[in-house]
Amino acid sequence: MTDSAIDDTVTDSDLAAALRAVLDGRWGSVRDQARDELADSSWLPDPSLTMQEARDRVLGQLQVLAKAGVPKPGFTPQQGGTGDVGASITAIEMLGYADLSLMVKAGVQWGLFGGAVAGLGTERHFGLVPGLIDLSVLGCFAMTETGHGSNVQQLETTAHYDAATEEFVIHSPTPSSRKDYIGGAAEHARVAAVFAQLITAAPGAEPEDRGVHCFVVPIRDDAGADLPGVTTSDCGYKGGLRSVDNGRIMFDQVRVPRTALLNRYADVEPDGTYVSPIENDNKRFFTMLGTLIRGRVAVGAASGAASRKALTIAIRYGLGRRQFEDPSTGDESLLLDYRMHQRRLLPLLARSYAFALRQNEVVAELHEVQSSTEVDQVRQRQLEAEAASNKAAATWHSADAIQTARECCGGAGYLAANQLSTIRDDHDVFTTFEGDNLVLTQLVAKEQLTAFAEEMHGLNAAGWARFVADTARSTFLEKSAARQIVQTLLDDSDENFEESELTKRGVQLRMLGEREDHLLRSAAQRMRRANEPDEDAFEVFNNAQDHIIAVGEAHAERVALEAFVDALHGMEEAPAKDLLRRVCDLYVYATLEKHLSWYLSYRMVSVERAKAIRRGVNELCAELRPHARTLVDAFGIPEELLATEMPLS
Amino acid sequence: MTDSAIDDTVTDSDLAAALRAVLDGRWGSVRDQARDELADSSWLPDPSLTMQEARDRVLGQLQVLAKAGVPKPGFTPQQGGTGDVGASITAIEMLGYADLSLMVKAGVQWGLFGGAVAGLGTERHFGLVPGLIDLSVLGCFAMTETGHGSNVQQLETTAHYDAATEEFVIHSPTPSSRKDYIGGAAEHARVAAVFAQLITAAPGAEPEDRGVHCFVVPIRDDAGADLPGVTTSDCGYKGGLRSVDNGRIMFDQVRVPRTALLNRYADVEPDGTYVSPIENDNKRFFTMLGTLIRGRVAVGAASGAASRKALTIAIRYGLGRRQFEDPSTGDESLLLDYRMHQRRLLPLLARSYAFALRQNEVVAELHEVQSSTEVDQVRQRQLEAEAASNKAAATWHSADAIQTARECCGGAGYLAANQLSTIRDDHDVFTTFEGDNLVLTQLVAKEQLTAFAEEMHGLNAAGWARFVADTARSTFLEKSAARQIVQTLLDDSDENFEESELTKRGVQLRMLGEREDHLLRSAAQRMRRANEPDEDAFEVFNNAQDHIIAVGEAHAERVALEAFVDALHGMEEAPAKDLLRRVCDLYVYATLEKHLSWYLSYRMVSVERAKAIRRGVNELCAELRPHARTLVDAFGIPEELLATEMPLS
Repeated sequence: MTDSAIDDTVTDSDLAAALRAVLDGRWGSVRDQARDELADSSWLPDPSLTMQEARDRVLGQLQVLAKAGVPKPGFTPQQGGTGDVGASITAIEMLGYADLSLMVKAGVQWGLFGGAVAGLGTERHFGLVPGLIDLSVLGCFAMTETGHGSNVQQLETTAHYDAATEEFVIHSPTPSSRKDYIGGAAEHARVAAVFAQLITAAPGAEPEDRGVHCFVVPIRDDAGADLPGVTTSDCGYKGGLRSVDNGRIMFDQVRVPRTALLNRYADVEPDGTYVSPIENDNKRFFTMLGTLIRGRVAVGAASGAASRKALTIAIRYGLGRRQFEDPSTGDESLLLDYRMHQRRLLPLLARSYAFALRQNEVVAELHEVQSSTEVDQVRQRQLEAEAASNKAAATWHSADAIQTARECCGGAGYLAANQLSTIRDDHDVFTTFEGDNLVLTQLVAKEQLTAFAEEMHGLNAAGWARFVADTARSTFLEKSAARQIVQTLLDDSDENFEESELTKRGVQLRMLGEREDHLLRSAAQRMRRANEPDEDAFEVFNNAQDHIIAVGEAHAERVALEAFVDALHGMEEAPAKDLLRRVCDLYVYATLEKHLSWYLSYRMVSVERAKAIRRGVNELCAELRPHARTLVDAFGIPEELLATEMPLS
Repeated sequence: MTDSAIDDTVTDSDLAAALRAVLDGRWGSVRDQARDELADSSWLPDPSLTMQEARDRVLGQLQVLAKAGVPKPGFTPQQGGTGDVGASITAIEMLGYADLSLMVKAGVQWGLFGGAVAGLGTERHFGLVPGLIDLSVLGCFAMTETGHGSNVQQLETTAHYDAATEEFVIHSPTPSSRKDYIGGAAEHARVAAVFAQLITAAPGAEPEDRGVHCFVVPIRDDAGADLPGVTTSDCGYKGGLRSVDNGRIMFDQVRVPRTALLNRYADVEPDGTYVSPIENDNKRFFTMLGTLIRGRVAVGAASGAASRKALTIAIRYGLGRRQFEDPSTGDESLLLDYRMHQRRLLPLLARSYAFALRQNEVVAELHEVQSSTEVDQVRQRQLEAEAASNKAAATWHSADAIQTARECCGGAGYLAANQLSTIRDDHDVFTTFEGDNLVLTQLVAKEQLTAFAEEMHGLNAAGWARFVADTARSTFLEKSAARQIVQTLLDDSDENFEESELTKRGVQLRMLGEREDHLLRSAAQRMRRANEPDEDAFEVFNNAQDHIIAVGEAHAERVALEAFVDALHGMEEAPAKDLLRRVCDLYVYATLEKHLSWYLSYRMVSVERAKAIRRGVNELCAELRPHARTLVDAFGIPEELLATEMPLS
């Protein structure tokens, strides 16, 4: 597709190294350190262990990570850490190359439990941090309930304040209020960060429900027995993540001191008076939730690592495995020489590149926002929307890539000794936890349609539809924080993209951007009905739900392309850049092909161009085929973690 | 979409019963018997068992099935069975509602091993059958090798005939000739049906390789120890099917008597002379393979059952689970009231109906062909192509449906106690074994393009491309065995389907048929290049591979619609028929939507119609929503097998 051939005087390993530098990004040194530490196949999951053995083992591995100082960057120096958020996420991401169970265990202890204490607590709680860093305090993150996963505002667990004793009473009033699927709750955790409806009465007033807050609640004694009033149980066997001890917790009038409330955003005074620097309940709730965004970003990151590993295994297998005769050579053909095999794997590889580059940007933005002493609310809200859209898009992509990798290795792919089936099992729930992908994907559209209006938070579907109908803002069309290089490329490209060269980056940007804008406009248009008489606002929302989901997906794909463009822009002209350009082209062509019926339906692509797009995917696959090994080597996955029984080329 | 409303004086259970009769089809009584026998949750897999315990348990369950006479219909009365092929496949299918591991164990013993002995052997081997029916002879089916899964003709295991001792010498000459992934080979099997290259010399002549044949080879003694020259090993942990003891076998000059050759299609006389009623090596090989088609049909059938069960669980969960507030009622909304949830599950449900009806036809045709005393070669070839296309389409659909069902149940779907993750794990390899789906999908196009020409068999990709280019037959356009009702509906519909009503069945048939024909024509056109000078025939094939795959998929979708139409035609006018008509409409609309970019690209659908199709999917989902429970009840899955920890409505 591109005119210039890739300079073949450069060695493949030089090419891979140059690409790796781009993919590694700002926290490359953290990645290299992790590569050294993880370069041992003993980090890989062992399918022969019983559930109990696997749980014991992962705790031991966690201790190794703790000793190596892995958790420290996630906490501020004041709290006993080293204060490097980006490094902390990157280290967790790298665990995705080894064992997703270990990644989840680490994420629960340091990211979710630790993140709640460090992010929602104040000085009075930070004494816990050294212990949770060195694992003398094992914790869990008790948010989800049997009845409420996605709808956190409706959690049922209560925390009644008792001014007489200056205690909160934590209670599970119904079967559906049981905390459920909680990593660590089945066995290891001694303390839980419990999300519950805070109910308190100011002196002389009636008790009032102040919404969901987080409390530090001891659940087990040192010997591991449930504390009085606490009943834990085990979620048992799961579709994967065998080492993670997911469990349930019921509270029967469990008393904790007033100071157990993580009181950064709200507190209860000894007499029961509720105080908060944030007046609006919804705003406070969503500010608290926003603090916890790190887990979501880490899940997207580790998911990306898992899919890069799966693709690496499948592509290297396909470069060695032969099947059916190629008469021109007399040998059988390599799997990766078949067009269908290329078409199955290489567009996913290109998408992995795009999403990895975008993931790095989200991590960097998280780092900036959470390292800053000033609070920029719009920036925080934008980051939340980006993290949501990115998590959903990344984990859906990874689920697809991992499954395809398994299938492309046939029966060998099904054996645990070849890792893919374990990666698939462990990864499966990534599309669900830390925010169900469908729910998260809607967030982008909702935020954009209301231009990040504060009032939007806490509205239900119908209320939100009515809000959009009322305000009918058009600001959403101005893309936030447009990048210089993207703007330049857009300006250089013809607005009439149907007649422009599809190989031009500006045209590509325009096509992906136009899809997002168009979907957004049509969602807005549909919402306008919500305030018409005789219209049920929930119905109006529901009838547009498929559009709203499509916006979120289109958004993730557009910003990933922009991240790709930015990364290319930062490279000097060299063979690695030529190669990466084609990977970017394949990402774009495959994305256009995926949505071809949409582009054709809205006449943004002619029938002729549609055929050119399909052809383009084929041609780019063929062009990248000779570089497939280089492209996966660029991920820099330690060879020890690619240990398989089947031979990899 | 349809004009008439569904008569609501009929109870849901009457509706479900009427639909069940249609879905159950010809072997409904076998299904009812299986429902009775399997109505006990103790048939379900137990995730807490170790691999060894699971293997022991499944063998016990197999013995229960043997005692109940389950395997008998698969064998002729002469062999000690009751001779009802359709009943035999149907019984195996029903195991898919209980435990896919058990289904595979039963399939290996009675379908593959038993099928090889009964189908490739002669009287001298039938003495084995009573033992393999009652499990006193445990067998395995040793076809696949480490180096060759899909390409059976290139298997490397050898069977040299030694006229001096009147024995065959079975040998694994290379590491890649190791028999691999063989169900039963790790532990239980005492005897193997071994596929190997038969090499023999007529008196005074040089030894000649006569191609792959099958031999009955004892591999273990009664105590389970490997026999001399046999080395078995264990494939260990897999992505699922934990109870199935997949293993490997290496042969070191293992001698078996001359009569170990399953000699229905070829024999070696004591002096080494090779004799066969089928002269052509390729034809003989493919005739042998064709005998083994039963396994492939059974895999498609059980896969269908697994996906119907998964959809039943997800849909019934979605009819009880609420999340996020519906302001019109004050309650939270049921998951299945959300459009996206409907869109994820209901089109898959409609496709499951279509594929179940088609599967029944394939089983019936298999029954007829294998029950007949006459050999109709064309009919046999057509059946093989249909079985291949059906297996691939059915298992791909099921993989999609099972995964979607898991995701639609969120975190609960990930718990083993709710069955979906186990179904997914066990099913995953169904797209690979009994013929890799990609390889099978190509078969339909290849057979149609060469009009089932005998010479086609055994050609490699390049040879096949040249053959198509040479013969350029157009006969493939005449659909085989056109059905009366389909023809009538087609005749009644306007050829210019763009201007006809999309709700008309004839137009729907035309649209799905036209896609298949068009893809086939364009594949043929591309093949013509194969004989041009300067063209590499393999390249020509490879460049058209995506078209060839698409033909196979389009074919499966078209014939499934025809099966649906036939089933509707056989029903009397009643509310159940009205309901089923809409399910059929949803199947068609969702299929058109899936391929919308193709229809738009080839101008078979206008932009306006494309939008109508998308709208139609939404509307049909909404129409079927109130009947969702009825539609899954119609599958008649015993309630005991739907035991889950999460509540189902």
